[in-house]
Amino acid sequence: MSKYKGQDRFLLAIDCIVFGFDGANIKLLLVHRDIEPEKDKWSLMGGFVHADEAPDDAANRILEELTGLKSVYLEQMQTFGALNRDPVERTFSIAYYALIDIHKYEQQLSHKHHAEWFLVGDMPDLIFDHNDMVKMAKKRLQYKAALHPILFQLLPEKFTIPQLQALYEGIYQSKLDDRNFSRKLLSTGLLIKLPEKEKLSSKKGAFYYTLDQSHYMENFHSFLNFIPNPDRFFKD
Amino acid sequence: MSKYKGQDRFLLAIDCIVFGFDGANIKLLLVHRDIEPEKDKWSLMGGFVHADEAPDDAANRILEELTGLKSVYLEQMQTFGALNRDPVERTFSIAYYALIDIHKYEQQLSHKHHAEWFLVGDMPDLIFDHNDMVKMAKKRLQYKAALHPILFQLLPEKFTIPQLQALYEGIYQSKLDDRNFSRKLLSTGLLIKLPEKEKLSSKKGAFYYTLDQSHYMENFHSFLNFIPNPDRFFKD
Repeated sequence: MSKYKGQDRFLLAIDCIVFGFDGANIKLLLVHRDIEPEKDKWSLMGGFVHADEAPDDAANRILEELTGLKSVYLEQMQTFGALNRDPVERTFSIAYYALIDIHKYEQQLSHKHHAEWFLVGDMPDLIFDHNDMVKMAKKRLQYKAALHPILFQLLPEKFTIPQLQALYEGIYQSKLDDRNFSRKLLSTGLLIKLPEKEKLSSKKGAFYYTLDQSHYMENFHSFLNFIPNPDRFFKD
Repeated sequence: MSKYKGQDRFLLAIDCIVFGFDGANIKLLLVHRDIEPEKDKWSLMGGFVHADEAPDDAANRILEELTGLKSVYLEQMQTFGALNRDPVERTFSIAYYALIDIHKYEQQLSHKHHAEWFLVGDMPDLIFDHNDMVKMAKKRLQYKAALHPILFQLLPEKFTIPQLQALYEGIYQSKLDDRNFSRKLLSTGLLIKLPEKEKLSSKKGAFYYTLDQSHYMENFHSFLNFIPNPDRFFKD
């Protein structure tokens, strides 16, 4: 069959927003841009989709080319298409995001394109509409973390309650009440207390816990209540 | 500045998934396709993005051209780009979805393109990957309805508990326990009981309620518990 006639055709790009947790802080991975336009600025990992690629495949290729990272679970977020978002030519960009364990990918990370982790609260100004993409990705993470056990995948097999709390506080960029967090967490009945204590972070020490794997998928809804008034994060 | 060289350019389409509630059932709006390919089949409301349009504007134009519907709040869902999704030419499609009050838009709905409402549980097979788009949109609605008060916007100012329950049951395509639903709903303290009863639907009648507007935005998190084990809906 012949092609569709008289229709406009566009460049299609991918931009990857990769958050990471290093055990204490939530960070964002950026690359240093060595080509025009916007040379020498920081940017998300981006590139053009090729004719023989599905969007997910293009996202994985582009992330690997720029950072060396392989088999990261990238989830499609949204397509950005404001008329002047790219000053050179009209380009639509499909944004993808991921949240990874920084230590797990340390060996893979290539610095060929100056890939670098920045604290989410202290990152440079980004090119094009990449700041908006990051903002939307933060909201999506907050959304997901309120409904899914994704954050537990970032913790080591044994962890302390303050470690888990730091992770939630990083995602929501809010201080949570220590006593409430601990009380609600323990009331879920999903944690198994271990006899050992972690003693590096505080004098008193904090007991290690491990997740009761046999129950946590089916009972995860009880985690919903971790975040007081979750809807306040979801308003836009 | 000149254009980007040597890159592939693609057709970009929009497809609109419009769900509606008629007071008793959740329905899906479809149009009858009068052009090739896939002539005479049912389809979502779709069309190509023009060079001078942002995605949201294209979505609104296309929905209006095919159905007459104006100022519907369309939310971008995801871009579909499998290699052979359109048999004529490689086309990426940005899918949008909405949930509207069918009665409110009754006057606007044009039948020029045979736009028709179908029960979500009993709709025809759709063209291309439109069945997958509808499936994903259903999940998104379930997600949103668990965290946002969106469903209340579809109810008349005074409503009965069975009406609200029908709406939740339609979105989750599941029977909810009557007594639990009613108990949890009333325990939120967000409903004001009116002295009148609705008597058409049952012999005994059901009291009308109205929403306590002054509290429901801030207390909406208490609605989270309406849906037992909400995460079971969110697994894929």
